[in-house]
Amino acid sequence: MSRQKFYGIVAYTVTPFTGEGEAIDAATLRRLVDRLIDQGAHAIAPLGSTGESAYLSDQEWEEVAEVSVRQVNHRVPTVVGISDLTTRNAVRRAKFAESVGADAVMVLPISYWKLSEREIIRHYDAIAKAINIPIMLYNNPATSGIDMSPELIARIVREVDNVTMVKESTGDIQRMHQLVQLSDGAIPFYNGSNPLALEAFAAGATGWCTAAPNLIPELNNRLYEATQQGDLAEARQIFYRQLPLLQFILKGGLPTTVKAGLKLLGIEAGVPRHPLLPLDEERTRQLQAILAELR
Amino acid sequence: MSRQKFYGIVAYTVTPFTGEGEAIDAATLRRLVDRLIDQGAHAIAPLGSTGESAYLSDQEWEEVAEVSVRQVNHRVPTVVGISDLTTRNAVRRAKFAESVGADAVMVLPISYWKLSEREIIRHYDAIAKAINIPIMLYNNPATSGIDMSPELIARIVREVDNVTMVKESTGDIQRMHQLVQLSDGAIPFYNGSNPLALEAFAAGATGWCTAAPNLIPELNNRLYEATQQGDLAEARQIFYRQLPLLQFILKGGLPTTVKAGLKLLGIEAGVPRHPLLPLDEERTRQLQAILAELR
Amino acid sequence: MSRQKFYGIVAYTVTPFTGEGEAIDAATLRRLVDRLIDQGAHAIAPLGSTGESAYLSDQEWEEVAEVSVRQVNHRVPTVVGISDLTTRNAVRRAKFAESVGADAVMVLPISYWKLSEREIIRHYDAIAKAINIPIMLYNNPATSGIDMSPELIARIVREVDNVTMVKESTGDIQRMHQLVQLSDGAIPFYNGSNPLALEAFAAGATGWCTAAPNLIPELNNRLYEATQQGDLAEARQIFYRQLPLLQFILKGGLPTTVKAGLKLLGIEAGVPRHPLLPLDEERTRQLQAILAELR
Amino acid sequence: MSRQKFYGIVAYTVTPFTGEGEAIDAATLRRLVDRLIDQGAHAIAPLGSTGESAYLSDQEWEEVAEVSVRQVNHRVPTVVGISDLTTRNAVRRAKFAESVGADAVMVLPISYWKLSEREIIRHYDAIAKAINIPIMLYNNPATSGIDMSPELIARIVREVDNVTMVKESTGDIQRMHQLVQLSDGAIPFYNGSNPLALEAFAAGATGWCTAAPNLIPELNNRLYEATQQGDLAEARQIFYRQLPLLQFILKGGLPTTVKAGLKLLGIEAGVPRHPLLPLDEERTRQLQAILAELR
Repeated sequence: MSRQKFYGIVAYTVTPFTGEGEAIDAATLRRLVDRLIDQGAHAIAPLGSTGESAYLSDQEWEEVAEVSVRQVNHRVPTVVGISDLTTRNAVRRAKFAESVGADAVMVLPISYWKLSEREIIRHYDAIAKAINIPIMLYNNPATSGIDMSPELIARIVREVDNVTMVKESTGDIQRMHQLVQLSDGAIPFYNGSNPLALEAFAAGATGWCTAAPNLIPELNNRLYEATQQGDLAEARQIFYRQLPLLQFILKGGLPTTVKAGLKLLGIEAGVPRHPLLPLDEERTRQLQAILAELR
Repeated sequence: MSRQKFYGIVAYTVTPFTGEGEAIDAATLRRLVDRLIDQGAHAIAPLGSTGESAYLSDQEWEEVAEVSVRQVNHRVPTVVGISDLTTRNAVRRAKFAESVGADAVMVLPISYWKLSEREIIRHYDAIAKAINIPIMLYNNPATSGIDMSPELIARIVREVDNVTMVKESTGDIQRMHQLVQLSDGAIPFYNGSNPLALEAFAAGATGWCTAAPNLIPELNNRLYEATQQGDLAEARQIFYRQLPLLQFILKGGLPTTVKAGLKLLGIEAGVPRHPLLPLDEERTRQLQAILAELR
Repeated sequence: MSRQKFYGIVAYTVTPFTGEGEAIDAATLRRLVDRLIDQGAHAIAPLGSTGESAYLSDQEWEEVAEVSVRQVNHRVPTVVGISDLTTRNAVRRAKFAESVGADAVMVLPISYWKLSEREIIRHYDAIAKAINIPIMLYNNPATSGIDMSPELIARIVREVDNVTMVKESTGDIQRMHQLVQLSDGAIPFYNGSNPLALEAFAAGATGWCTAAPNLIPELNNRLYEATQQGDLAEARQIFYRQLPLLQFILKGGLPTTVKAGLKLLGIEAGVPRHPLLPLDEERTRQLQAILAELR
Repeated sequence: MSRQKFYGIVAYTVTPFTGEGEAIDAATLRRLVDRLIDQGAHAIAPLGSTGESAYLSDQEWEEVAEVSVRQVNHRVPTVVGISDLTTRNAVRRAKFAESVGADAVMVLPISYWKLSEREIIRHYDAIAKAINIPIMLYNNPATSGIDMSPELIARIVREVDNVTMVKESTGDIQRMHQLVQLSDGAIPFYNGSNPLALEAFAAGATGWCTAAPNLIPELNNRLYEATQQGDLAEARQIFYRQLPLLQFILKGGLPTTVKAGLKLLGIEAGVPRHPLLPLDEERTRQLQAILAELR
């Protein structure tokens, strides 16, 4: 199990639907995967928050996982989001992801009821025991309702064998500092908060998990490269340039805004699934203006 | 559609499982329903948060809905929780609940992505249009991640025809004041925060949606009756008596603590489903001490 | 030291200024004190938050304390706010309040830097040791920046001899429940959050510390009396009647809104001191409408 | 009025007291000023939060201002904290600071009552009109209780003539991004949150206002220099090295921890003033260990 193969721009795919969000549009999904790889993404992450994973039936989920991983075909590594409310179903999904060739799985401890630390650890442990690929632990209290402290995260990485990467999406840079301190820099961490991209790389993030490459892949890549070359002035300039887009997609919800942005770029990936609604007209115009500015 | 038939103690059922949380234990579920009615509950609410609704497959959900409503058999009214992440599935569940004889459905706008007001309203509207029984709107940001302001709630009650009741579970008494003010007292509201039971009735709540009657039905009923008779001194005394139990089940999570409490009372309703874990030993002892004190 | 003499409506005085907030207007202050007592306040509380205590020089503070206490002249008890950033000055003020005849002092642990529990306890202890009248501990994180947990408050009441009363202004009814539980009901507590008046009395509050009697004394008294007689329906009706005024003065800031209200009632108590500004025109019209409704 | 002379490490002085916090120890104050300048601070900031400004009498405040500014003697620029609860006294202090030779004043809108935007703007305006030196606007809701949004800050900089610099101490890097965006990068901003030092410089901060140079001046300077040279790897390494100290002084309160640290370094600057207490033994040992590690 090679620990460091995920780095740089880890790009989220959206899940394209036909019609009013009825069925998976596999052909478009394949095209979106190719497009991300062709434009320089260092890894592909299907079925994350952006992929509306939470709104798919089990069968749909499996279809998206299989189509995505097979389409990537190891050109770059894939990390598949397998989060589910029950441990049983999360395990099932993790095994499926492994079976179709995923390089890693991403696990967010979503839950209706708040989970205790004991329950969170058991959840990760049950998944880890069921598979032989690495787990990227994912912390995102804004969507999951569960906030894992840096101390708990470091403990899980220590105690659960194949949890080897951490995606931090609180947007709090101090969490990343603490992960570095708690592990003497040994835990690879990935930033999941778009408007924190510059500072997360400054603080030592290994990668940036983001849906933005669907819309502005070149700017995302250039930010990563500038930070890798230690060119802070260049990194800062490129970051502020793309910041309005990053803020917009965060605020408006990723599936909603990225699907609207793809449409503005000429790619029909359908609408998000209800209760999510397509971006309204006013905000679509705002997004168009932001994209026009960046071309 | 009679608007006011839900009042007083609206009792939540747990969902009993066999073994390690594998299958629905329908026989025990029937027994728990009978027990709640026999001990004086004014209404029964299956498949709420307490009922681990979020952790059931669609088929299991339907089984619990059908068994519960048929067992109640109109001895008291039933309100069935039909919340689901997608509007499509919420509609499907609402129709099923109506078809098996539910008197009302309870709808919490759970969502992975935060919903805009427009999205929340459409979600309620889609469900309302699909059924002919009333909807109890349910606000509980702690579990759903979505907080509906009193202004939004009042608007939904005004605009969506069969949303006729509101369950408020923020624990913020000011929300109830605002609901009264925004509707000149016309919206029946129900308290869903156990440690607020006394004050919610003081502020004019029509009912108390609670899992506590599984453990202390008599104290719950006496609190309601004292407030109805305007006997504030008696109500206060009975409230403080049961408060430690109410605090305990809130803090420990309702399915976890109520199932542990049922076991202490001699009723085997199984364990909560993973990732939830059974109450640990230390807290089980605490619960035992609290229950012993109340007998 | 009789513990229970403070009860019912504990009325805050504003501090009237001449001109643009320059000097103390002692004549008007005396008149306001008389007015509150004549209209039924059960106790008078000068130099609280409402009294702009924080904006007075030491000399002005002493003038207001002396004029107020002497004007009350033991017709009802007085509790004087002596809070200051330094322990040294708080002690000095407490001794002065005692020397001019105050029945008690109110102490809020304001501080620029957050205080540790150890520092808070020492602060109370230093004041308590310097005087022979009771202390009303005051918790109000919204103005002081320091939040004392019920556990800490109960500990201070236990450990520091003449801390005998607690004013809770967080607006969180659960804090009051916890004070009751932590002391078996032995700590007299007073509500300092106006829109919580009904529920605080329901939960067992001994009194209500409020600036509202400057504007609507009769409604305040009637609410108290209804709760004392256990007439919950009447209490609720009177509470909702006055709630718009209570919400308005909380939201707009007490010195600002109460001085504006006094002016609308024909009493010129001057403007609040800069940086506070007089209520603007639009909100003055709102206040006028609310007051008109209540007459 | 030259706008850009404050940059780099803007070092806070503590206010040394004699005995138990009784009187100003002017001799030590002079020595601390010299020490900071000799060790490379780019500017000196007396009477900030660290300087216990809030706990000084008016006379003491003036003594510290005069001694500090005269001792700096324009070797580097000085920015004097003049915050006070009343506008009147803040104006008085600002004029005094200017009269003794300060290059700028720092203004935090502290207030007992929350201030409206209108009140905040008037407060700044009144101070600005009274002096001819620049104002550094200071936002620190954790100590002041008032949070100024980036939009409000940008508006004040636009509308109030000599507000030319902004010190942001929320610790939220997004606030700095927004200041850049709202002013097209024209507002010089300074970071006041120690554990954000690396990222604030990455985001374009002009300076770092910090008490840390009293204890670790060389590491502070090297961090600044590395970021100026765009050497991100070096900056990151130096930042993580000093981070434990930065976290410690933030958590423990600056006057308390910096005075304890000075004592550990052989410099007797006295204790903080009550209600603040000296650092306790256990934490003093922790601080000693952190400092030992950094030597």
